Amino acid sequence: MSQHWLDEIAWNADGLVPVIAQEAGSGKVLMLAWMDREALQKTVDLGEAVYWSRSRAKLWHKGESSGHVQKVHEIRLDCDKDVVLLKVEQTGGIACHTGRHNCFFYRLEGEGWQAVEPVLKDPEEIYG
Amino acid sequence: MSQHWLDEIAWNADGLVPVIAQEAGSGKVLMLAWMDREALQKTVDLGEAVYWSRSRAKLWHKGESSGHVQKVHEIRLDCDKDVVLLKVEQTGGIACHTGRHNCFFYRLEGEGWQAVEPVLKDPEEIYG
Repeated sequence: MSQHWLDEIAWNADGLVPVIAQEAGSGKVLMLAWMDREALQKTVDLGEAVYWSRSRAKLWHKGESSGHVQKVHEIRLDCDKDVVLLKVEQTGGIACHTGRHNCFFYRLEGEGWQAVEPVLKDPEEIYG
Repeated sequence: MSQHWLDEIAWNADGLVPVIAQEAGSGKVLMLAWMDREALQKTVDLGEAVYWSRSRAKLWHKGESSGHVQKVHEIRLDCDKDVVLLKVEQTGGIACHTGRHNCFFYRLEGEGWQAVEPVLKDPEEIYG
């Protein structure tokens, strides 16, 4: 019997793998989060991104409180089998908890980080 | 005096940060690697991606042996300041050591990972 697809992943010492979420339509990189084995299995079963929250130490169904779920179009793995790439449809067009489209809104300009993406919705409105 | 931009990054316990390299033109995600403080400073100084190789435990100027350097167009940081996104021009159109355009060439299909991107150049030809 062939090896289970979850066993082929090179999980790190904490049993996690970094996961890049990329918007399927725009190609924009939305965020990076982490998954354990259960999170990735649930992501496949549900068709929506489920991460492992390292700060809260529990499974995190992205969008469970905001409604901003990520519908999974495709799941990729890299050459070393230690990084996952999800191509997703971002419900609500907001991936970041700050109310921005994506999490990579600081741009290095000269000697400083500048926030260069607009807040689309007040976080208090999203989570309040 | 304001904080140095390198000090604003939330380096992990090993003094590293994960770095996503994205092709500026196509928007494709090329790879994920790691940087320490020195690697990121050198990346800025050189205008080309310099990573920290965890397997070789040394700085790694991407393309130093293959010629496939990554010219940096933009440097982004995420909301938690613990993930960097580089927008790069990939010299030679090959980011992966397997000779493929990018490292995310395994796609989950049913219960297995399938290699779905072509090898553009024989690795022996690249590194031999």
